[in-house]
Amino acid sequence: MERVTSLEDLPLRTNLQGLTPYGAPQLHVPVALNVNENTHPIPDAVARDILANLAEAIHSVNRYPDREFTALREALALYLGEGLTADNIWAANGSNEVLQQVLQAFGGPGRSLLGFAPTYSMYSILASGTDTTWIPGARDADFELSPATAVSEVTRTNPDIVFLCSPNNPTGTPLSLETIAAVYAATDGVVVVDEAYAEFAPAGTPSAVTLLPGRERLLVSRTMSKAFAFAGARVGYLAADPAVTDALRLVRLPYHLSALTQAAANAALAHSAEMLAMVDDIRGQRDRLVVELARLGYSPHRSWSNFVLFGGVADPRETFEALLAEGILIRDVGIAGHLRVTAGTENETSQFLEALGRLGRAGTPG
Amino acid sequence: MERVTSLEDLPLRTNLQGLTPYGAPQLHVPVALNVNENTHPIPDAVARDILANLAEAIHSVNRYPDREFTALREALALYLGEGLTADNIWAANGSNEVLQQVLQAFGGPGRSLLGFAPTYSMYSILASGTDTTWIPGARDADFELSPATAVSEVTRTNPDIVFLCSPNNPTGTPLSLETIAAVYAATDGVVVVDEAYAEFAPAGTPSAVTLLPGRERLLVSRTMSKAFAFAGARVGYLAADPAVTDALRLVRLPYHLSALTQAAANAALAHSAEMLAMVDDIRGQRDRLVVELARLGYSPHRSWSNFVLFGGVADPRETFEALLAEGILIRDVGIAGHLRVTAGTENETSQFLEALGRLGRAGTPG
Repeated sequence: MERVTSLEDLPLRTNLQGLTPYGAPQLHVPVALNVNENTHPIPDAVARDILANLAEAIHSVNRYPDREFTALREALALYLGEGLTADNIWAANGSNEVLQQVLQAFGGPGRSLLGFAPTYSMYSILASGTDTTWIPGARDADFELSPATAVSEVTRTNPDIVFLCSPNNPTGTPLSLETIAAVYAATDGVVVVDEAYAEFAPAGTPSAVTLLPGRERLLVSRTMSKAFAFAGARVGYLAADPAVTDALRLVRLPYHLSALTQAAANAALAHSAEMLAMVDDIRGQRDRLVVELARLGYSPHRSWSNFVLFGGVADPRETFEALLAEGILIRDVGIAGHLRVTAGTENETSQFLEALGRLGRAGTPG
Repeated sequence: MERVTSLEDLPLRTNLQGLTPYGAPQLHVPVALNVNENTHPIPDAVARDILANLAEAIHSVNRYPDREFTALREALALYLGEGLTADNIWAANGSNEVLQQVLQAFGGPGRSLLGFAPTYSMYSILASGTDTTWIPGARDADFELSPATAVSEVTRTNPDIVFLCSPNNPTGTPLSLETIAAVYAATDGVVVVDEAYAEFAPAGTPSAVTLLPGRERLLVSRTMSKAFAFAGARVGYLAADPAVTDALRLVRLPYHLSALTQAAANAALAHSAEMLAMVDDIRGQRDRLVVELARLGYSPHRSWSNFVLFGGVADPRETFEALLAEGILIRDVGIAGHLRVTAGTENETSQFLEALGRLGRAGTPG
């Protein structure tokens, strides 16, 4: 087609005009530590079982998938434990879709969503996409969030929905169950705890799932993208009161989870132990990053996630580009004087640390 | 968990209160002719190639998928032909998601969507989910839609978006390119032609894709669910001006198409000829349904789709239940005196017609 039409020529809705799409750069580099993927490929034995399940699913791919994804909900309930059953579970194509469905059900025009900035950049985008008003609340020093500060923000802003990122992205900072319980008690709205990175917390740390009994407005979202090394398969999920999943059925698109997604996820969940075997490794590399970044003169924040945010970067753009020139991609998350790096394999982490070391001493803290 | 919470106990958004979820019954029966699936499983040789692509994709499933699904867009452009390139193509998890993204980009609060009722039941649900006002426009006799009637409804209602289902679901009736061109000329809004069933039109019928040059507000949506026997894989797509795909990038969730979906669809598209081999068969069974339903005393509507809507059913509920008792599931689409049946394999179609024949003569036309 010859005509050159631009976005301005189309009757785009008003609140989208002038926006640019979400997009971490998609660059092909030897060491990609920018989007908090699990850099360990899944084990061969597990891959074989996933493929066997997919082979079975293809035989009936001419039929619509199970709209209720019952086997997957059962497998996810079993994985989370804590007495949950399939009735407590919801799933979608990535936790972004789960969170979008939550906003479609409980947000919308005239309603508001409180998050604690800096936090996961998709929250405000999802709010905008569902015409929900985004409220960026404040944190304590070092990006921590105490019960008192959180409750004070809830009381001040009176939101319909609160998103609590635990541990927080892009800062890595943990969130206590006390803060979550205090926020829940301070609002009549829906409280979502986004535990995308929960498996990287110290062993034995209780999940917000333990807070669910008696709290019907509490939702705990998870993903298979990170700990399960399943980012490419797009499986996010949520645990909550069964009434919440009924609400989500009102807004989900019918058959939103493909037969292939269900088959692959079911096989992976049957191998939870093997799939999670890399988590210990990754925690080790994360802790190493914190120690070594400090040794290099940077100011890493404490992290319960699979990434580390570090301050003390004189010129984040310059450092980012210098690393990229060496084939190492990390992330400028837009926090002055800071950069974020994913904990990769031991070798990837070494390459990053050595390259950073070669750049010379850290600059003035931002 | 012990408490019994109901939907009414949750702060559900106002326009969802009292609604029930979309849901064709998910019953396991020997002859399922209710949701217009392609009842032919995909050929073994194609299944093997799909599996080979999936095996490859699993090796890097720990990484996020190609957010731009470039290979898939290229394959879809090649399939549609008409000089389209990857820049003209968009895809999502089923055409429902494509249409939802269109409404997120061009609809929303204060905007309206015109469709011509009775039409695909998801349109009004998608409108409600995006706070777009749904306007059910009128059709001509026998569910046809002439240029004059369509333009008159567009002029009367002045919508921001028009959805034209071609051929129409649940009636099966075709739509002429003249009507589409006339609607486009009569509005400044976005015009979507939903060609989910286009491959079942008589051979040589031109697609609305041929109308795209010079019409930057025209969008043609398609699906791999029907002709490609790929309902379980959830792949819908759209052809339009590249500016439209830029608009959809503003509202799509990042990485919305999984690596598995992309791998499976790419393999299937490489086998278009084999995948579409069943289409002729299905057209034959559809034409047989029209002839035989008339012979049984019913009033089938003309269909360019893989299903037939037939009137003259004295008591649709009774007929539906009587067929179900024989293991045959068809669809009551809520049109008085009518039922809808998918054209299945020759054997499935025979079972349906024989069972219907045993029920005795048709009743009074509704």
